[in-house]
Amino acid sequence: MPPSTDAEPVPAGTATSPVTFDDVREAAARLDGVAHRTPVLTSRTLNALVGAEVFVKCENFQRVGAFKFRGAYNAAARLIPGQLAKGIAAYSSGNHAQAVALAARELGSSAVILMPEDAPRSKREATAGYGAEIVTYDRYTQDRTALGRALAEDRGLTLIPPYDHPHVIAGQGTAALELLEETGELDALVVPVGGGGLIAGSAIAAKALHPAIRIVGVEPENGDDTKRSLERGERVTIPVPRTIADGQALPTPGELTFAVNRHLVDAIALVSDAEIIAAMRFVFERLKIVLEPSGASALAALIAGRVADPPRRVGVIASGGNIDTRRFTELVGG
Amino acid sequence: MPPSTDAEPVPAGTATSPVTFDDVREAAARLDGVAHRTPVLTSRTLNALVGAEVFVKCENFQRVGAFKFRGAYNAAARLIPGQLAKGIAAYSSGNHAQAVALAARELGSSAVILMPEDAPRSKREATAGYGAEIVTYDRYTQDRTALGRALAEDRGLTLIPPYDHPHVIAGQGTAALELLEETGELDALVVPVGGGGLIAGSAIAAKALHPAIRIVGVEPENGDDTKRSLERGERVTIPVPRTIADGQALPTPGELTFAVNRHLVDAIALVSDAEIIAAMRFVFERLKIVLEPSGASALAALIAGRVADPPRRVGVIASGGNIDTRRFTELVGG
Repeated sequence: MPPSTDAEPVPAGTATSPVTFDDVREAAARLDGVAHRTPVLTSRTLNALVGAEVFVKCENFQRVGAFKFRGAYNAAARLIPGQLAKGIAAYSSGNHAQAVALAARELGSSAVILMPEDAPRSKREATAGYGAEIVTYDRYTQDRTALGRALAEDRGLTLIPPYDHPHVIAGQGTAALELLEETGELDALVVPVGGGGLIAGSAIAAKALHPAIRIVGVEPENGDDTKRSLERGERVTIPVPRTIADGQALPTPGELTFAVNRHLVDAIALVSDAEIIAAMRFVFERLKIVLEPSGASALAALIAGRVADPPRRVGVIASGGNIDTRRFTELVGG
Repeated sequence: MPPSTDAEPVPAGTATSPVTFDDVREAAARLDGVAHRTPVLTSRTLNALVGAEVFVKCENFQRVGAFKFRGAYNAAARLIPGQLAKGIAAYSSGNHAQAVALAARELGSSAVILMPEDAPRSKREATAGYGAEIVTYDRYTQDRTALGRALAEDRGLTLIPPYDHPHVIAGQGTAALELLEETGELDALVVPVGGGGLIAGSAIAAKALHPAIRIVGVEPENGDDTKRSLERGERVTIPVPRTIADGQALPTPGELTFAVNRHLVDAIALVSDAEIIAAMRFVFERLKIVLEPSGASALAALIAGRVADPPRRVGVIASGGNIDTRRFTELVGG
């Protein structure tokens, strides 16, 4: 893969895999002391409910409230000084925006984030709070990819994509690496799938450590683009899914992430919005933690019995907790 | 203090203090591997808001969802085999009920919990879920203390009170002990005050380790019985306070707890219900954790600037997280 017009850093990897376990381990060293080593929670009630020993990796406690900081920081930290001096760009209305903004600040760089005009004010404020410049666009009339590329080119910024990049994938893989360091061998690892960066990195780390581990991705019922793509053996595009799991509302898998996931992901489980809400309520009332819908989807699949061939010892990535009380009330209510 | 008619275990302590630091350390050994060593969370956002380095001891992650398990288990574990064989009793509609129920189960004993008929169904179910027998009474016509004593006497049960007992106080002190083991010396420790057991035990441990540490209790504005009692130098009784902090809605300090607290508590800060709700929202959105009103009150005092002479490094006990999504929605809403 040649460097793109966005002056992306030269990708790592080998001829057979764009990202290796060594890349994940290097990312872990880079993130040491910068990202949180998030806790792994267990609960007797959860174990009884699922009928397995469940280990919940709490990325809602990660900096910026989601695993996204891992990949964004790892990618930003690999830029050369000249790139950092000019600044970093991203387009995102979600957790990746905050992740890139914070990574830039941590590295003494600057960030420009392209966001839709109608992005939630809380997300804009959080991103601006990390010192990023926010450029808005009208998502009904303007093409964000073209705008992003133009912006990056005009200002000499380096674009950090949300998932389809080897350094981003390697960074996300550190979540599974930490989890498995704590739990030892597991039968299965259950991971939410949006663009596929988290599960790709996690699968690389997990299968390198424990080749027999089963990697189960979780998608919203009507956002099953990765499931369809895996069945078809090529990337499928579906209509933009309507789901409360906004971090997973993508129409097609990433190119690079799919190249990894088609080899390493063993199964995809689907969950309904109602099952996600039930899981959000469960973790609120029993684990005393806050998960956003995408962050709860993997756990929802386990609780709802959607994971076929139930594992005995299972890891789950609770990928993020960015939801305000207003939205939580709308969704989970009384 | 002679053994009471409830066949309470013989109290520990010395002539000058009913509970010593050694009692707390022994409780810690007893709780090792049984209670959770709960995490201490920090947050840059919280530090910036408070203007201090803040360490939050998350007892919402304790077994039964609150610090109460520490004291209940420590007291139950000190009973003699004959007492455990006959069973344990408690009267409580709150977290102490669940704590005693679980402690009894862990020790192979049984528990009878006296609860008002109109206690929330969720609390009854949780307590019954730990295997306790629940006996209800009409709180408008029946005297719970007399009923509890009669019940204990009839069945030969040992009553474990919620706070006014040396072994309960020693158990609660282990929360502060763990916190300080993790943080090292702090300028102040901010602790919610209900009956006074948590702050009494915490003060004993904290002042033994760091004599200069300031112990600040937090009460709801209109539940300031301990503040008034400390000012008066004797226990004062106020009308049963109306506050959302149900764990702190008590009319008078405990006898034993007040005997400790009058010597070791340096100040009481008061918080309003609105300040508690703001703190519950803050920890939900920024720390991604769930706290019940009483569990958030100490942090609320810090955030609202109610702690006089602000400390530079401060520990806070977030004492519990037992609130369902319905009640959370009613209080914190959108």
